[in-house]
Amino acid sequence: MKILISGFDPFGGENINPAYEAIKLLPDSVRGAEIVKMEMPTVFHLTAEVLEEKVREVDPDVILCIGQAGGRCGLTPERVAINVDDARIPDNNQQQPIDEKIKKDGPAAYFSSLPIKAMVEKMREANVPSSVSNSAGTFVCNHIMYQVLYMIDKNFQGKTGGFIHCPFIPEQVIDKPNQPSMSLADIVKGLKAGIEAIIERDGQEDIKEMGGAIH
Amino acid sequence: MKILISGFDPFGGENINPAYEAIKLLPDSVRGAEIVKMEMPTVFHLTAEVLEEKVREVDPDVILCIGQAGGRCGLTPERVAINVDDARIPDNNQQQPIDEKIKKDGPAAYFSSLPIKAMVEKMREANVPSSVSNSAGTFVCNHIMYQVLYMIDKNFQGKTGGFIHCPFIPEQVIDKPNQPSMSLADIVKGLKAGIEAIIERDGQEDIKEMGGAIH
Amino acid sequence: MKILISGFDPFGGENINPAYEAIKLLPDSVRGAEIVKMEMPTVFHLTAEVLEEKVREVDPDVILCIGQAGGRCGLTPERVAINVDDARIPDNNQQQPIDEKIKKDGPAAYFSSLPIKAMVEKMREANVPSSVSNSAGTFVCNHIMYQVLYMIDKNFQGKTGGFIHCPFIPEQVIDKPNQPSMSLADIVKGLKAGIEAIIERDGQEDIKEMGGAIH
Amino acid sequence: MKILISGFDPFGGENINPAYEAIKLLPDSVRGAEIVKMEMPTVFHLTAEVLEEKVREVDPDVILCIGQAGGRCGLTPERVAINVDDARIPDNNQQQPIDEKIKKDGPAAYFSSLPIKAMVEKMREANVPSSVSNSAGTFVCNHIMYQVLYMIDKNFQGKTGGFIHCPFIPEQVIDKPNQPSMSLADIVKGLKAGIEAIIERDGQEDIKEMGGAIH
Repeated sequence: MKILISGFDPFGGENINPAYEAIKLLPDSVRGAEIVKMEMPTVFHLTAEVLEEKVREVDPDVILCIGQAGGRCGLTPERVAINVDDARIPDNNQQQPIDEKIKKDGPAAYFSSLPIKAMVEKMREANVPSSVSNSAGTFVCNHIMYQVLYMIDKNFQGKTGGFIHCPFIPEQVIDKPNQPSMSLADIVKGLKAGIEAIIERDGQEDIKEMGGAIH
Repeated sequence: MKILISGFDPFGGENINPAYEAIKLLPDSVRGAEIVKMEMPTVFHLTAEVLEEKVREVDPDVILCIGQAGGRCGLTPERVAINVDDARIPDNNQQQPIDEKIKKDGPAAYFSSLPIKAMVEKMREANVPSSVSNSAGTFVCNHIMYQVLYMIDKNFQGKTGGFIHCPFIPEQVIDKPNQPSMSLADIVKGLKAGIEAIIERDGQEDIKEMGGAIH
Repeated sequence: MKILISGFDPFGGENINPAYEAIKLLPDSVRGAEIVKMEMPTVFHLTAEVLEEKVREVDPDVILCIGQAGGRCGLTPERVAINVDDARIPDNNQQQPIDEKIKKDGPAAYFSSLPIKAMVEKMREANVPSSVSNSAGTFVCNHIMYQVLYMIDKNFQGKTGGFIHCPFIPEQVIDKPNQPSMSLADIVKGLKAGIEAIIERDGQEDIKEMGGAIH
Repeated sequence: MKILISGFDPFGGENINPAYEAIKLLPDSVRGAEIVKMEMPTVFHLTAEVLEEKVREVDPDVILCIGQAGGRCGLTPERVAINVDDARIPDNNQQQPIDEKIKKDGPAAYFSSLPIKAMVEKMREANVPSSVSNSAGTFVCNHIMYQVLYMIDKNFQGKTGGFIHCPFIPEQVIDKPNQPSMSLADIVKGLKAGIEAIIERDGQEDIKEMGGAIH
């Protein structure tokens, strides 16, 4: 099994992106699966081109993207990506689309094809706070998750894909009062646990564990 | 123009649901549009049956559903409904589905067909805190929004539909420390402003106003 | 009985201060007690001079100061004022003291001499969210509460005094995402309930109701 | 220099208290200062008796108490302790005092005699999120901080004392949605940095750094 794990570069005024920092610290192999790592630009559409090129080169079984969600307390596998870009801040190429479809011929949304409930369970067993998220936002994180699932749907049937958001790391919140963070070591541990869940559930349905939100 | 506005009954241990309390206080006519009011049960699937019956009876142009989102600070028109029930608490019939599709033959999601950005703008002009929400959760609120848009898609082409979440009202948070609330009068004022936006934008696209979320 | 109720003018970039807006809407008499209203400047030390002059003129039995605590969800009678100015932002005279004693010859702190638990109870009975606060901060609100209790201690024995923080009102949070607010009508209702509690408990100890904080 | 560092045992339904877990991992010597460690019971008054006995035995220069503040995002040196017990939950001996003075003959409050601003600065330099707290609550944490400063005032003039609150650690929030945490390693690193600041500022005033709160 081969897993392509991709993290964004820094955006929104940050000097680092904990997503890619964590990816760099992952082992090259987890339970026999090969881990291929890459950094993506935080730029609408360009990020998908860069990623698709890598997918063609590497031919992974799983495409797992990681992004930063400042303000969250735990790792959050995303349930769904929606077909809209609505940027609150400019991306790293100064684009700021408002209510534009990501793919004119795409469906309204794609559900993650990763076992998000099993991933959350495994992360928690590793003592890493985690929960399912029901919105990846409307910025580049949601964009790449949608693009990955779209490219799988159109061109790479058989592969699976999804997205995990991770919190700020402590050094990012030194000057941000009352902002939660998670140590880089715990993010790495949690991502590794999530990857293990993906490997374990390969070919099976996700587990049926409560993980919804009332609103 | 005829607008059917529907609010849930109380759930989750609450004695009242501010959604329906607010609806009862709306005028019967807004800018010449007729307002038809109803209460829906907080019960998966049954709520859609009850609503669809009313739609057939009333034949509204717009179907607007209202629900409670305890913990939110403002009125939040919902952008999207997703095809999944994942209940954190039982509904009012003791059903608690986990990761079940709402409609086997439905798409992953439906976007609101109401002008959510214009609604937010109008609510703010009325001095009622408001913002777009990118997730209606995975409980009965998301369920009915999905069902409404599904029934429009399948059986009532030409109608429009959507959902607005409203905060707790003050009397609900007396015993809940540090929970935001909004006065019933302001919820009513905000819903009225939202309805006005729906009427004003009738037949046009939504305005292009920033309203996304980074994550 | 005569109650002097004093509210700050706007500060921190706000155009209004809900504290004084609410005071203006209070009746001139509550349960037979005369209500005398005034506005105070949000300026360290000057605010105490202005208030003390009014106290000498009016000779009230009770001195109740009201200020804005943006971000809080309910009305919060303050338990204690501490002998320090530590300003995160400049006051309205561009003063920004860091860790300076308010009164060189004053004690470390004064407890409110108002019945804060009874006030909270009465506010809740009026359906206004309320709780005891254990810190009035270190800005001008804490400053005037300390000054009032110091001037009573030194020069006006027999009078009682204290402070209530109130939330933003809705129009202040239109452009502040995820900030709680309370309607001006509810702030007025809650202040009136608090004043009633002060009148009812006159000459008695406060009620023994749980209202502490773990940390 | 000798520093007695004391942490509470678990309370409030928790199996561990990160305060004492972190203390156990501190070195026995920091910059030449001897570190003496102890666990205190989370019991009103008894905890002070246990601590005072240890102070008589060890004769430390500094008494630093550490407690858990679930919900906080960073380490928070406390500025002030107030003379009141007002328990929201029972202590570990089932005592739940409401609005009782800690010491009948004590002042309303004591300010920390530790250099809290320098401690925060040093913690931040070590990349550990930290800020001054203006309220230690009204439970056993505030109680012991008050007791320490009272016993220094009455019986141990020349010693200094204070309190630091620390967040939950990740394993404590696995089942608590949306609760921030801090890794045990970072708590240890932050406490060590705080101790270094205490040693460095020995005999001097605290630094003048902004660290107040508006309310």
